[in-house]
Amino acid sequence: MKLTILFGGASFEHEISIVSAITLKEKLSAFDLTFIFCDSDHTFYLIEQNKMKAITFSKGEHKKMPCLVLQNGAFVEPKKGMFGSSKEYKDIVLNLIHGADGEDGTIAALLDFYSIKYIGPRVDACTFSYDKRYTKYLCEAVGVKYVPYEIAHKDELSNLSLSYPIIVKPSRLGSSIGVSIVKDESELDYALDVAFEFDSVVLIEPFLEGVKEYNLAGYYAKGTMNYSLIEEPHKEEFLDFDKKYMDFSRSEQVLKADISEKLEKRLKSNFDKVYRGLFEGALIRCDFFVHNDEVLLNEINPIPGSMANYLFEDFSAVIEDLSNALPHTKRIKASYEYIHSISQAKGK
Amino acid sequence: MKLTILFGGASFEHEISIVSAITLKEKLSAFDLTFIFCDSDHTFYLIEQNKMKAITFSKGEHKKMPCLVLQNGAFVEPKKGMFGSSKEYKDIVLNLIHGADGEDGTIAALLDFYSIKYIGPRVDACTFSYDKRYTKYLCEAVGVKYVPYEIAHKDELSNLSLSYPIIVKPSRLGSSIGVSIVKDESELDYALDVAFEFDSVVLIEPFLEGVKEYNLAGYYAKGTMNYSLIEEPHKEEFLDFDKKYMDFSRSEQVLKADISEKLEKRLKSNFDKVYRGLFEGALIRCDFFVHNDEVLLNEINPIPGSMANYLFEDFSAVIEDLSNALPHTKRIKASYEYIHSISQAKGK
Repeated sequence: MKLTILFGGASFEHEISIVSAITLKEKLSAFDLTFIFCDSDHTFYLIEQNKMKAITFSKGEHKKMPCLVLQNGAFVEPKKGMFGSSKEYKDIVLNLIHGADGEDGTIAALLDFYSIKYIGPRVDACTFSYDKRYTKYLCEAVGVKYVPYEIAHKDELSNLSLSYPIIVKPSRLGSSIGVSIVKDESELDYALDVAFEFDSVVLIEPFLEGVKEYNLAGYYAKGTMNYSLIEEPHKEEFLDFDKKYMDFSRSEQVLKADISEKLEKRLKSNFDKVYRGLFEGALIRCDFFVHNDEVLLNEINPIPGSMANYLFEDFSAVIEDLSNALPHTKRIKASYEYIHSISQAKGK
Repeated sequence: MKLTILFGGASFEHEISIVSAITLKEKLSAFDLTFIFCDSDHTFYLIEQNKMKAITFSKGEHKKMPCLVLQNGAFVEPKKGMFGSSKEYKDIVLNLIHGADGEDGTIAALLDFYSIKYIGPRVDACTFSYDKRYTKYLCEAVGVKYVPYEIAHKDELSNLSLSYPIIVKPSRLGSSIGVSIVKDESELDYALDVAFEFDSVVLIEPFLEGVKEYNLAGYYAKGTMNYSLIEEPHKEEFLDFDKKYMDFSRSEQVLKADISEKLEKRLKSNFDKVYRGLFEGALIRCDFFVHNDEVLLNEINPIPGSMANYLFEDFSAVIEDLSNALPHTKRIKASYEYIHSISQAKGK
């Protein structure tokens, strides 16, 4: 099967996306892969297979490779000179741009506009997963429990009513960037400053003691929801950026969490409520907390690191099934019915 | 002041957008305007001023005009032949594409990606206004009351608990397209069929008797919220597409609704809750219902017909102020810090 991996992006997770793409190159070696890199200046480059190494990008060698532009139905390498011909890349795209661009709806809208089929979250799905506030709005509406929260805005005094310890996080970033655990009031200002470095809106949540964390990935294909195994991630106080970064290159299948059948069902049922009618076309990972026997959604990763391949037994089959289950986006045709009827009424 | 009006789009409101653009050509005659038309096949055309007539588009004459492509910072007319030069259109864009493309986040994402400044709703703002379900989610979260609703999905039996009469509407369309008032059960199936023609998700609301409707537009600029006058629109059972269509060419200023100062304050305070932190950069119109002394948000028009110019005293000043208050979108620079540190650790 042919597949284009789109990675990079103007995001704090730019490097992580490169690591993800390199991991998937190995993991999807049975596929006929094309690699398209979105540089942080938003130029697209076609990357040769044998140059799919981290050093290619950190050294800027990609800038010597062919530039691509978006046209209706394809990424296109424009013709060179008078007599050259342009090359089109029309395969299904796997959107592997983590963070800004990839997960905030930009790339989804771009591919929709140019009628390029893709695996990944659609625009609305991005809105509800990229900004952690909006994930809470979604949970409230579909009946999924979540960690309570307060909002702090930059340059506005906030009166916090949560009691310490708390977690302070930028509303719109993943991968633990800018996140702090605050044990008492003396640490708060610094934590807020750090978080406001990355976003003008900051979320404050209670730090829940004795919480268990479970990760579950899944996607809709072949007329049904398909789930990964459930992992209980290694838990330190929380994963910092360095550790999460290494996490993005994971390719070994993990061990199934040792949980009751009942809890497994509850996690899957919560996953369903979040996914249905919104995330079709994407493979997402939901990170749940279990606290005082309640299942809480912590966050949605609509483009998880290396597509959470390590949670699936046969990852190639997952991608193949998903690429056969992409949502249809019918482009609306313009009609000139009213203009015609007005012109007629005016007699011209 | 220079301004580019972007209109058209692949939407059921394609024609309405043309009418809006023609109306604004007159209303903003003091501006140095450029007109860019997005055809329903997603080709952009540069339209000559004197061709800004409905008949240009219904006859397909625009197809003879110059095609533009998106590049970093501008719409560009590519150079012709070996020795021509390309022309760039870099002015602030007024997104005047109603419905799909313009209001669903697609155009916003496109302009964001190519770093073109624009007046109009950003991606998240589009998500929360284009789909009427998500407008309800937003209201719930920010503490604005709304008309209660139920959801019907295509090909799924629904048990309705609302009592007749009800309104049946596609979740994602404006301008009354596909909307029916259903007086009893015998009319329900037909109304659902009509609505499902346009969307796979349908909203069902009670038809509120004795409701008053008030429209209020506004925008954030010069450090404050700026409101239009409040209009009580002509109310028939509800405006059908033909009537709304004519509505889009309005340019005469309307009369202020005769309401108490207290109600005016309540409408503005509800407008604020919806707008703040989400709609910055856009001039939106909120349509409110007042029912049993409660203020309910009916819908948000993030790109109102002809920009609701008829609700403002000095519409040119409005657009000028707004164009000086567009949100900054700082593009994130990629860093290769981690890749460098890994390369060093590996000793290569």
